[in-house]
Amino acid sequence: MKNKEPMRIALLGLGTVGYGVYEFIRAREDLQVACAMSLVVPEDVTCPIVKDIRDIWADETIDTVVEVIGGLHPAYEWVKGSLEAGKNVITANKLLIAAHYKELVSLALEKGVALRCTAAAGGGIPWLTSLKRCAEQEPVIRISGIMNGTTNFILDTMHTTGGSFDTALAEAQRLGYAEFDPTDDLNGADIRRKLVISSNIGYGCVLDEKEVATEGIEHITGEDIAAFRSMGRVCKLIAASRKLDHSVAAYIEPALVPPSMPESAIPTNYNLISLTGEHIGKQSFYGQGAGRYPTAYNVLQDCVDVSHGIRGFYTDRLEEAHVDNSTVYRHYYVRTKGDDSWLKARTESFLPCGVITEAVSVSEIHAWAKKRRELDPDCFIASLR
Amino acid sequence: MKNKEPMRIALLGLGTVGYGVYEFIRAREDLQVACAMSLVVPEDVTCPIVKDIRDIWADETIDTVVEVIGGLHPAYEWVKGSLEAGKNVITANKLLIAAHYKELVSLALEKGVALRCTAAAGGGIPWLTSLKRCAEQEPVIRISGIMNGTTNFILDTMHTTGGSFDTALAEAQRLGYAEFDPTDDLNGADIRRKLVISSNIGYGCVLDEKEVATEGIEHITGEDIAAFRSMGRVCKLIAASRKLDHSVAAYIEPALVPPSMPESAIPTNYNLISLTGEHIGKQSFYGQGAGRYPTAYNVLQDCVDVSHGIRGFYTDRLEEAHVDNSTVYRHYYVRTKGDDSWLKARTESFLPCGVITEAVSVSEIHAWAKKRRELDPDCFIASLR
Repeated sequence: MKNKEPMRIALLGLGTVGYGVYEFIRAREDLQVACAMSLVVPEDVTCPIVKDIRDIWADETIDTVVEVIGGLHPAYEWVKGSLEAGKNVITANKLLIAAHYKELVSLALEKGVALRCTAAAGGGIPWLTSLKRCAEQEPVIRISGIMNGTTNFILDTMHTTGGSFDTALAEAQRLGYAEFDPTDDLNGADIRRKLVISSNIGYGCVLDEKEVATEGIEHITGEDIAAFRSMGRVCKLIAASRKLDHSVAAYIEPALVPPSMPESAIPTNYNLISLTGEHIGKQSFYGQGAGRYPTAYNVLQDCVDVSHGIRGFYTDRLEEAHVDNSTVYRHYYVRTKGDDSWLKARTESFLPCGVITEAVSVSEIHAWAKKRRELDPDCFIASLR
Repeated sequence: MKNKEPMRIALLGLGTVGYGVYEFIRAREDLQVACAMSLVVPEDVTCPIVKDIRDIWADETIDTVVEVIGGLHPAYEWVKGSLEAGKNVITANKLLIAAHYKELVSLALEKGVALRCTAAAGGGIPWLTSLKRCAEQEPVIRISGIMNGTTNFILDTMHTTGGSFDTALAEAQRLGYAEFDPTDDLNGADIRRKLVISSNIGYGCVLDEKEVATEGIEHITGEDIAAFRSMGRVCKLIAASRKLDHSVAAYIEPALVPPSMPESAIPTNYNLISLTGEHIGKQSFYGQGAGRYPTAYNVLQDCVDVSHGIRGFYTDRLEEAHVDNSTVYRHYYVRTKGDDSWLKARTESFLPCGVITEAVSVSEIHAWAKKRRELDPDCFIASLR
């Protein structure tokens, strides 16, 4: 590590997050944006703009590449090439890290460079660094939480106003809390990536995201919310995983939480993410899960850590593990049109617009819901906590 | 820093926390309890027991002293002497650090050794390390939270059961959540120490704990709680501070929080502590604020950090600052027997057992309450959030 001389950074992307990172670094003396790549360049950006990523790879004065362009391509090629060129890489790209976890982590470890992605899960919350810190001292046995601000905003708005899903989604889009195409947020794909990255780091494993049972909130209605309110519960989209002996339970689902759980009181687009350590018990981390400055802040923290000499990934354990949700049992709220013999046999009580089941395994009911949608596309399930 | 050889630790205290630290370190190879001092020594402790602290100071093979005896004496003399002898010091002693902050921090900085006290605020929550991490990157402008497990357990029990203060306190004592003499927890002295240490680190200042306006929960009644429930609010003992231009607002008081604030859902003896950074916004940290293993865990994390070469204190800024609560305005619930002209002039509405005031300054109402207790010792106030 060079002392006194600033760490020279190539910044890939000058969009919402990228420009926030640029602003933060501009105000510092220990870090320097040596050059940037971006299709659109804000007027007051004064660093050289590079057109070809290979110029960055060939520049030996550049220590570290910060990737904040998002998406899978060309982010994958650029990050992989940067690691191969011996550069440290800092990224906020959860899509990329969840999809190519083993390959990219192995490559960083092999090359002896840093790979950091703290902003990829929890936005501006120091979640992955805290998780790593705990996992180094004692076994992490559970991870769970509200890890998607868009869905939390929509659910919170529906609970607060009593309005419809469409109205809440439109409001989220108006305020910039939901993207123009919110599919990946609503169907759980976004939060699933964050759960996979977190579980991999916490348990030292490698999960295949396609194995994670996933139910989103796209089918929830104002009537569902009214029923939950009458039960004294709040609906939240929850990611959860548990370390088992030879596998990992991991799933995404709407959950009905009682007021005694802190998750019930997480407002608007905030996140709350928890780990449970063997001795330390449950620890939770709360803050803004997205937005220019919160996300840029965690990218900056990663830059500072790397400039202080931190190398490698959060963990060097890469044991492939399968997902097994057959041992986790919960009661579920289920709303579906028409009769179903499986559901009928497991119904414990009736609500105006749905039923409450006996305790069933997560794997069984998620599989049932997937199949049920062939007959009733609007079928909705939510577990009781 | 020696590589491979374990860091040799002198452990002062083998009580609840000390024995937990001993158990954690026994299982590791990078740390070693070289010797311990304790009046009572559990049977399975196999390290040498030292009778005179000067033997530890004179032993050049000992890097680090861990102080977990608690109390002001002899902890003060032992910690000070250890720093003077060039030892790193790790302590869980909030009483000691709050009372002798400037002297001990200055001494550690002067000697170039580590002084760490992560377990002193937030028990097992990585609060002080996260606060330091944020304060290094951007100005921290607010700190607040539930930082005392005893009072949270009592208030939570009163809300949940509808029972009296005495019953809840007895239950807390039965479960080990309150000490035999709970005075410092109930009157706010304990949480005040944690707020002072946190504010000092967050803002880079030195506060005098006696200047922090402090109202505890020792006068709260079941009738108060019933009134808060009818308002849809939950009573919590809150510590709060704000960085002002040339001073710091800092106070401890019962606060009535709405269900939309995560603070409302903090159960039993848990803590929730928050910081607000200029760009990053509010970040909160939740977990067990006390107990053998959570507290020992943060002591262990400090040991690991020091073994990795971390020195000094969380901050090296020691600017003395005065407390000024005259610019923070809130509405208050006030219950007092008999007439009072000041209160009458500021009353906005009436409840069965108390009144709600117009917005008044924290400094004014805390001063009023202190004076009012000369006439009505049971007077109780709580701010509305």
